[in-house]
Amino acid sequence: MYNDKLNTSIQNPHVSVDCVIFGFKEGDLKVLLIERKAASDNNSSPNKKDFLLPGDLVFDNEDLDTSARRILKELTSLENIYLEQFHAFGNPDRVRKPSDKPWLEAIRTEPYARVITIAYYSLVKLEDYKPTASSFANNADWFSLKDIPELAFDHNEIVNYALKVLKSRIQTHPVGFELLPKKFTLSQLQKLYETIMGENLDKRNFRRQFMKNGMLIPLMEKQKHVPHKRAQLFKFNKEKFEAV
Amino acid sequence: MYNDKLNTSIQNPHVSVDCVIFGFKEGDLKVLLIERKAASDNNSSPNKKDFLLPGDLVFDNEDLDTSARRILKELTSLENIYLEQFHAFGNPDRVRKPSDKPWLEAIRTEPYARVITIAYYSLVKLEDYKPTASSFANNADWFSLKDIPELAFDHNEIVNYALKVLKSRIQTHPVGFELLPKKFTLSQLQKLYETIMGENLDKRNFRRQFMKNGMLIPLMEKQKHVPHKRAQLFKFNKEKFEAV
Repeated sequence: MYNDKLNTSIQNPHVSVDCVIFGFKEGDLKVLLIERKAASDNNSSPNKKDFLLPGDLVFDNEDLDTSARRILKELTSLENIYLEQFHAFGNPDRVRKPSDKPWLEAIRTEPYARVITIAYYSLVKLEDYKPTASSFANNADWFSLKDIPELAFDHNEIVNYALKVLKSRIQTHPVGFELLPKKFTLSQLQKLYETIMGENLDKRNFRRQFMKNGMLIPLMEKQKHVPHKRAQLFKFNKEKFEAV
Repeated sequence: MYNDKLNTSIQNPHVSVDCVIFGFKEGDLKVLLIERKAASDNNSSPNKKDFLLPGDLVFDNEDLDTSARRILKELTSLENIYLEQFHAFGNPDRVRKPSDKPWLEAIRTEPYARVITIAYYSLVKLEDYKPTASSFANNADWFSLKDIPELAFDHNEIVNYALKVLKSRIQTHPVGFELLPKKFTLSQLQKLYETIMGENLDKRNFRRQFMKNGMLIPLMEKQKHVPHKRAQLFKFNKEKFEAV
């Protein structure tokens, strides 16, 4: 019988959570990153910025969702965000890049221990969430997806995976509408989809898809505060979307 | 600065993987379960069956996907199955049911340690996979979804979650076709969907949905080995499905 009392190839790893928070504003998809406080490492340049996703170890008596909310709040002050677990990352070498070593040595009792991380993502209206860094975060801010630097650990891979999940999700769930104002133009809606999908979409096809199912309600209003060609506003027919 | 050297609320949990293997045969959706060898527990009835999902602890130098494949093979002999990670379960009390205690005490160095599990699922043609139990499994067999007994740990919850994922997936991915013979009737296809969805579907609507996109190719053949009313056979247009 298999028995871990007889087996030395199992040590207990650390388990962490990491959060990929996507924010959308004016045609730009961003990700919330923190800058970690420099470890006492004389070799590293003092000007080197060191970015990563908000994440940390799970407490003993905490379930994973609670842990994700606690850690996001501790590091960035953001709370009341709907977080969805999307994938666990368990490459045995994921925390073994030389550039992560000084920081791990500074804060971990077992700096070389394996860390398996459970990743969460969320999608928010960027302007509703202004992060404030605390705990080991020196800084917390939104980064355009196209300007994301090399991150600590395997965090670039985690961001890319989250983006893949988001692209798939936006095609079958009404997630995208949470990112727009209540009243929006068709151009704004298309821009949102194009930004997340990372490609241009055919205008006529796109509009036909959305109009044919009655998912959009045309309003008797037009855009304000634009110099000319004020476009019609729409609102989202949530009941209809859920039924489809 | 947050520092786990100063924090006593973090112990390293165990990390395991668990596999929910769905098999389909003749209108019945089944799940692969193992029966674990009885622990040396004098209080338990010798006739009590003790079922659970194939799963075990992850080795130190193993990534999660490798671990899932190794463990499934060790316990059930099944291999070359495509496994997809779907969720991590981390309730701190998930391995603390009194009925699981004797077994944990028999095989674990730290029987009361928390175990966080990463769950995988798969969908196979049942007749292609005949399990053979080994390691701590006494027995390994297919159970109809409607006859699943009370399982160890939180494994009933894990099966239910996997089923939810499968229901959602079958509506957007061609997973279902992997479960049918190459040539099938429309009734077989509908029965597959009805079984996974757990509800009756309208025959005309169902057929229209599948026919309108050219996803099914009608063959010049009819069913064999049925006494009367031999139905037309179809095959799946994989290229078309992927394009849609």
